[in-house]
Amino acid sequence: MHIEINRGSGRPLPLQISDTLSQRISSGLLQPGEQLPSVRKMAEMLEVCQVTVSKAYADLERRGWLIRRQGLGCFAAAPGSGAGPKPLADRQGTTGSHAAGKRGASEEQPAAAAYAGKHATRFASGRTEPEWQKDYEDYLPRAQLWRNFNFSEAEYSFHLAAIDSGMLPLKEIGAAMTSLVAKRPELMSAYGNFQGDPSLREAVRRHLRTRGIVLPQEGLLITSGTQQGIDLVARTFVGPGDTVYLEAPSYTGAIDVFAGRGADMIGVPVDKDGMRVDLLTKLCDRRPPKLIYTVPTFQNPCGATMSLERRQRLLELARSYGCLIVEDDPFSDLHFGSPPPPSIKSLDTEGHVVYMKSFSKVLAPGCRVAGVAAEGDILERLTAAKAASDLGSPLLIQLAVLPFIADRYEAYMKGLRSALKSRMARAAALLKRHAPKGVRWNIPGGGLNFWLELPDYIDTGELYSRAIREGISFLPGNVCYSGEPPAHHIRICYAQMDEAKMEQGLLKLLLLLAEAAGDFKAGEGAK
Amino acid sequence: MHIEINRGSGRPLPLQISDTLSQRISSGLLQPGEQLPSVRKMAEMLEVCQVTVSKAYADLERRGWLIRRQGLGCFAAAPGSGAGPKPLADRQGTTGSHAAGKRGASEEQPAAAAYAGKHATRFASGRTEPEWQKDYEDYLPRAQLWRNFNFSEAEYSFHLAAIDSGMLPLKEIGAAMTSLVAKRPELMSAYGNFQGDPSLREAVRRHLRTRGIVLPQEGLLITSGTQQGIDLVARTFVGPGDTVYLEAPSYTGAIDVFAGRGADMIGVPVDKDGMRVDLLTKLCDRRPPKLIYTVPTFQNPCGATMSLERRQRLLELARSYGCLIVEDDPFSDLHFGSPPPPSIKSLDTEGHVVYMKSFSKVLAPGCRVAGVAAEGDILERLTAAKAASDLGSPLLIQLAVLPFIADRYEAYMKGLRSALKSRMARAAALLKRHAPKGVRWNIPGGGLNFWLELPDYIDTGELYSRAIREGISFLPGNVCYSGEPPAHHIRICYAQMDEAKMEQGLLKLLLLLAEAAGDFKAGEGAK
Repeated sequence: MHIEINRGSGRPLPLQISDTLSQRISSGLLQPGEQLPSVRKMAEMLEVCQVTVSKAYADLERRGWLIRRQGLGCFAAAPGSGAGPKPLADRQGTTGSHAAGKRGASEEQPAAAAYAGKHATRFASGRTEPEWQKDYEDYLPRAQLWRNFNFSEAEYSFHLAAIDSGMLPLKEIGAAMTSLVAKRPELMSAYGNFQGDPSLREAVRRHLRTRGIVLPQEGLLITSGTQQGIDLVARTFVGPGDTVYLEAPSYTGAIDVFAGRGADMIGVPVDKDGMRVDLLTKLCDRRPPKLIYTVPTFQNPCGATMSLERRQRLLELARSYGCLIVEDDPFSDLHFGSPPPPSIKSLDTEGHVVYMKSFSKVLAPGCRVAGVAAEGDILERLTAAKAASDLGSPLLIQLAVLPFIADRYEAYMKGLRSALKSRMARAAALLKRHAPKGVRWNIPGGGLNFWLELPDYIDTGELYSRAIREGISFLPGNVCYSGEPPAHHIRICYAQMDEAKMEQGLLKLLLLLAEAAGDFKAGEGAK
Repeated sequence: MHIEINRGSGRPLPLQISDTLSQRISSGLLQPGEQLPSVRKMAEMLEVCQVTVSKAYADLERRGWLIRRQGLGCFAAAPGSGAGPKPLADRQGTTGSHAAGKRGASEEQPAAAAYAGKHATRFASGRTEPEWQKDYEDYLPRAQLWRNFNFSEAEYSFHLAAIDSGMLPLKEIGAAMTSLVAKRPELMSAYGNFQGDPSLREAVRRHLRTRGIVLPQEGLLITSGTQQGIDLVARTFVGPGDTVYLEAPSYTGAIDVFAGRGADMIGVPVDKDGMRVDLLTKLCDRRPPKLIYTVPTFQNPCGATMSLERRQRLLELARSYGCLIVEDDPFSDLHFGSPPPPSIKSLDTEGHVVYMKSFSKVLAPGCRVAGVAAEGDILERLTAAKAASDLGSPLLIQLAVLPFIADRYEAYMKGLRSALKSRMARAAALLKRHAPKGVRWNIPGGGLNFWLELPDYIDTGELYSRAIREGISFLPGNVCYSGEPPAHHIRICYAQMDEAKMEQGLLKLLLLLAEAAGDFKAGEGAK
């Protein structure tokens, strides 16, 4: 375990330490029941004084992440509420029971130990886990993506922002793949160009031109999905203590990646016109940005769209600070009304914006293909980083999605928008009819998610556990924040399942919500 | 540009700085002709005193990486020799001329500017490169992989350790892919498990058991090739100043990755029995290892195989220091005589070895599939890192290679070994007959490469330029070292092309070598 200390950040050291530790516990990287280093040892490791560590541990204890046991030391714990979800793997006998039994999770806290759970990746053999590994330092402060997205077992899946495979053009892409395998089998053997296949880059470039993004001939990199694009930018341009601004809430996969680089992330509030660029401007006065990450259109998770004026001001800000903006754009083609404002990239003339467009998300998510638009040195360095990451994405798959992007994308997208809009409306109708009082949401203008704000009296951690038991997954809102999060939101994707199943699942989830509300009222009545 | 300063490493700071800068220049990340920050500015950036930077610049100047221009400042330069290759893109009119004209590469040093060259990824549009990007700090100290492996233009390719597509089972894998597309199109839409498809993991686990590696049910991670495996280990367990031991020479892609993490790499010499574990043991006394990276079998690039005794001692060392060994094993199945000693992983009972086995390399390199064997916390953390990297490798491709690995691998491998052995023998015969005096090599006992030591009087940089002009690529040996390298080796792969082409290309290359020797002798005669 490596804890990044940013002395220039202005945030008190004890809080930096306690934040990192609570992130590790809530990600499942540190398990409840696991012993923490002594105050003295931790102080030595971090080269801080013992008082600082004592304060950090006191803060963790106050927040419920740490339990002191007389004469034994300090142990990681899971707070009773707001702590995030139990992983789904808890439902599976083997891994759950194994996890509960490991590392001396005490009988006094079986709930906490079960909470940690640790997924299907648990070391589940006859071997015992090697003791030395506990002391082996890692640089992985947070892993919410791993913890929250890898659920194949849920009967009703709302946790991923993904499109039901029945709506995707898998037949066309499959046909292209079959034809390539027959005609150009050497594609399976060639490493290809690190930057991506030139013909696919050209097709993507032409496509982006229709969206107002004019790129030079070579101004594109193909990545294995947008997640890899974000990761490449972070590993190349973000280092320990660098200031990264992003919306609060934001995409949890981006937060994981920036945390992994030791960045100092600062969340900027979002209103109906997107990120509060006015607040960002003031924040930048005190702490100049190294990078700004944004999902300006149908924001993930909350759905807001940044106004054109704010886009312009954001770009202006990047110009004046000489920094990069990462514009992550999974959803702009999925609008239900008039098209959203032009992308920030389309306004960019000086290479400040790295624009990321996932094609696999709307065509075939398992294919992992995204276009990353950047210029000059920025692009070159990203290409070099891509080479070191994986020597380039599989050529066959790149070329299998090409014809669809080149020829059929617009017609397909028109149909997809209309299908998604009707499905979204179905979900909205169910929400309106059945959501208990106090649950609030906006009707999304596009994209795949509803962002529900729950009343304070509903414990999302508890709700999550109940939902998982019923085979229903959603994304707990707390993982969408880089710091200590508010715990009263959940994100649900209305498009991940077919319509009938989505309706069934949503009704079940709303029933759980109503129960939680009922429990509360019953409790109120009893007082 | 970020320069990692490791104050505890014992290596003088000026040399740390000059090493990093020369690595950046030789990787093409800093171009000859490009201005370096002033001594004062660099000292401020690095928080070192100006004398340190002055010494670093003097060292660079002495080694030919820096030119001082009166009243203008210091500029990156390319040493006359031993500087590594010109990139192949120089041969293409557009990018070459563009690169030569950019950033005021002065007329006084056209060779240096042409040398920098900068590939097909050059910002080649009408836009000029944004000035602010020059000052935007990156964390990419080295990119030799990017610089040396992305050559699709060479007529005669010897630079990649790859197998001629005519020898690969593309038909079988293609058939599996076609069948999957027809029967399970949903594979194109599913994200799948971050750790890799369970059925592929099981097939790989069974396969590894036949090699003496016994893994628990879940003890495997599927990655997009071994490159990604190395990268995941580095990002998870290696941080600034951590000591990484590796063979000298070693795989350049691994060096890139560890350099990117700010590791302090220490090269351990290799003899005919592999890494000198006796020397490593002494080195560890002074600087305990965080991680040891090794290619123990038919080592890349030099071909040596580590003896069983050294494997045992290496593992013992990892146990006593509580550290990881990364065992990269691309070649153990490609033996021409009796099988090599058992893998280090097969001797490991405490999870010290992360074992990497590339399947795509021997089946279908473009498919990017490797198995990474690890246990316990180490495996979990790698899986979490994999999620943050790319949300998992494409499912369809994982399942397309599965049947071959499960059912046909051994029979195929038997044939492949014999075909490779005969091709290797052809190359060896040509070398023996035509290599000029003073060129030395060992006949490889397996694997895909010859590691040629050239006589001192042959300038490998110059040879490389000539070879590229003739359409011949090879890997210059200097990129296989983490520090300032010896410059008199080249690696050639005998298996990348079909036999006839390999023979033609090798003859041409040997002719160039003979010419270089002849030039030398003529020069000697004239003296």
